[in-house]
Amino acid sequence: MIKLDTNYAHCDTLPDYAGKVAEIHASIINKTGVGNDFLGWYDWPSSYDKEEYALVKKLAAEIRQTAEVFVVCGIGGSYLGSRAAIEMIQGIYPKRDVEIVFVGNTFSAPYVVQLLEKIKDKEVMVNVISKSGTTTETAMAFRLLKQFLETKYGKEGAKSRIIATTDKNRGTLKEFADKEGYATLTIPDDIGGRFSVLTSVGLLPIAVAGIDTDEILRGAKQASLDFNNPELSKNTAYQYAVCRRILEGQGKSAEMFVTYETQLTMVAEWWKQLFGESEGKEGKGLLPASVNFSTDLHSMGQFIQDGGKCLFETLLLIEKPMLDLTFPSDPDDLDHMNYLAGKSMDEVNKKACLGTLEAHHDTGNVPNLILTLPDTSAYSFGYLVQFFFVACAMSVYLLGVNPFNQPGVEVYKKNMFRLLGKK
Amino acid sequence: MIKLDTNYAHCDTLPDYAGKVAEIHASIINKTGVGNDFLGWYDWPSSYDKEEYALVKKLAAEIRQTAEVFVVCGIGGSYLGSRAAIEMIQGIYPKRDVEIVFVGNTFSAPYVVQLLEKIKDKEVMVNVISKSGTTTETAMAFRLLKQFLETKYGKEGAKSRIIATTDKNRGTLKEFADKEGYATLTIPDDIGGRFSVLTSVGLLPIAVAGIDTDEILRGAKQASLDFNNPELSKNTAYQYAVCRRILEGQGKSAEMFVTYETQLTMVAEWWKQLFGESEGKEGKGLLPASVNFSTDLHSMGQFIQDGGKCLFETLLLIEKPMLDLTFPSDPDDLDHMNYLAGKSMDEVNKKACLGTLEAHHDTGNVPNLILTLPDTSAYSFGYLVQFFFVACAMSVYLLGVNPFNQPGVEVYKKNMFRLLGKK
Repeated sequence: MIKLDTNYAHCDTLPDYAGKVAEIHASIINKTGVGNDFLGWYDWPSSYDKEEYALVKKLAAEIRQTAEVFVVCGIGGSYLGSRAAIEMIQGIYPKRDVEIVFVGNTFSAPYVVQLLEKIKDKEVMVNVISKSGTTTETAMAFRLLKQFLETKYGKEGAKSRIIATTDKNRGTLKEFADKEGYATLTIPDDIGGRFSVLTSVGLLPIAVAGIDTDEILRGAKQASLDFNNPELSKNTAYQYAVCRRILEGQGKSAEMFVTYETQLTMVAEWWKQLFGESEGKEGKGLLPASVNFSTDLHSMGQFIQDGGKCLFETLLLIEKPMLDLTFPSDPDDLDHMNYLAGKSMDEVNKKACLGTLEAHHDTGNVPNLILTLPDTSAYSFGYLVQFFFVACAMSVYLLGVNPFNQPGVEVYKKNMFRLLGKK
Repeated sequence: MIKLDTNYAHCDTLPDYAGKVAEIHASIINKTGVGNDFLGWYDWPSSYDKEEYALVKKLAAEIRQTAEVFVVCGIGGSYLGSRAAIEMIQGIYPKRDVEIVFVGNTFSAPYVVQLLEKIKDKEVMVNVISKSGTTTETAMAFRLLKQFLETKYGKEGAKSRIIATTDKNRGTLKEFADKEGYATLTIPDDIGGRFSVLTSVGLLPIAVAGIDTDEILRGAKQASLDFNNPELSKNTAYQYAVCRRILEGQGKSAEMFVTYETQLTMVAEWWKQLFGESEGKEGKGLLPASVNFSTDLHSMGQFIQDGGKCLFETLLLIEKPMLDLTFPSDPDDLDHMNYLAGKSMDEVNKKACLGTLEAHHDTGNVPNLILTLPDTSAYSFGYLVQFFFVACAMSVYLLGVNPFNQPGVEVYKKNMFRLLGKK
């Protein structure tokens, strides 16, 4: 399903890691490593709560009947996964009856004010997503949305238009939702935000977009089987995990995630959180960055080709694009482009990719790891995210830090709360 | 107009650069440095062609009368500047009669196919932007757009809906446009793509959006006067230029451009091209990366706080946001957010910023340079871009490479053309 080509990197010591990898694999399976309280994602594609999942589908169908705009109110892992999925599977300009917008992910007032203005005459439903309910960006936006809905539909009417995705038993949002009688969905205790796209957190917005979530889970399940394998030589996820560490050992401080489809831009953002937040600890870890080619070849291409040698590239390629077109001939040929007539645009895209690979690797001396996925289907999305989950856990354990906490995120929050006078 | 605070970085050696800076300043003014054929941007805000500018305004007014969708067909410097301006000045969800979309900046077929489908029933006008006309992404998209317009409006009708922004005298697109009789605008010979936002390249799309381009040019002119000053102690642009090099000398390999307004996301992308493409040469230069806070504090915050120490941050802050709101009180206070009632959302944003600054600098030991702009007005945009132009030239000259060429961009193109069988 997913192929890894290491021929454009120099990871000759890969096999040396087989023993260490098998050992870490056992600690993941047996839940004996640090952070083992947060391994719920590992067999989630098989073990997920079927009753909860049925509720996700039921709610999604209702929302699709009622809403013109579906507002997803969440930040970090509470929105990146669903947004990545929706754009990857449906593209940047899909035809869809329900528009999906994201808020609760910023303190930027102009964004929030313009968004509320934009949706004011539409039929709106809201999904507020927060484990605790105390995430400030999300809680502020949700209060504004709730008042917006109450003004529009009355206090009772508003209640039927809100779905809260939160902790099963406790927390501010859970109590709030129970008191108000909102429909609620559950964030599992043993799955952190950046690993939550296959839970209700991600699946409700994805289902509202009209995507077949069964297929996503089927893909993820296949990946969870394929990568539950201690043998490094047979486990692509672990190979990718090790190659990252080998290239880091060669002095690279940044990993540039490269895609060639515009619709993968948010997958890159999701990937940045997964890897950056999992391994950026104790002064360690690779800086995760991203570009979308060929677009950004015309902005970042020069630097990658000829600039500071601090990075390696990880390409995520798609074999068969979601849509394609045949480049037409023109009798006048005033643009001198007839040499491409009859070729598909994707064929040109792939030649641009190959030409760039040669340029960056052969001429620029930049290592390239190449991941290839068959397509941008729901199944492939599910497979891809589970692949990255497994690879991330292995890669971060190899670094020797806890992949599943995020202690550094609390520092600015503590300062901010003090400055805001929060008790 | 623009303030630089270096108190959160450690740039104590700044004054030592005064002599070197004065020397490079003279080489810019006297056009004696490498790449001096491309210094046209330096006094452009005063010296721009007034007749051409009148034509930009006239065309923009016509387009605003006719088009529901204005398609900007260009890549790199041919779209990043206008997109950055439009989003910064008008926000992410503006009210506007003309929708502006961008194409010709990718080989990603699904993006192009979906875009053509999306605009098919709209009144469309097209601006193709390319100095030579041979940029493959742009030329392919333009052929598709031309056929689209001809099918919709006939061969003659299509001609009146295309504006070509290209070389004054020569090149494929210039010949093409003359033969077809398109309205044409000019890309000056001595201004490279990444410095072109204040020329017709950027100004036509910006004017079509309804933005006051006079104000942009007025701001840029003031900046060009303010920063035409050899004295480092009095030149903020040069201080920023030097600080980048000092922090690089302290072992930093990446500069993280940080904004706290969603509408500045594309300014960051524009900045990445300006600095990355100008200095990423001969194995030198800082990797330009970007985040949008507080959004990305919930994805990249952990890494910046606690991860690999390869980066410093450059903040671009806005004193007065485009829009704001007062956070409302709630009698039930089920979300426990009443402690923020009566505060403006921007006040919370600024406290988040200050808390993060303390966290990253004091606790995380990450240097922070802080640029502050009064607002996101057209005037401020013009001032800001000219500030960055001047800073970029100085900073890259200090590095000892030519700021104005981009030899590395040709390598992949050469490979690609060979693979595509181009003669």
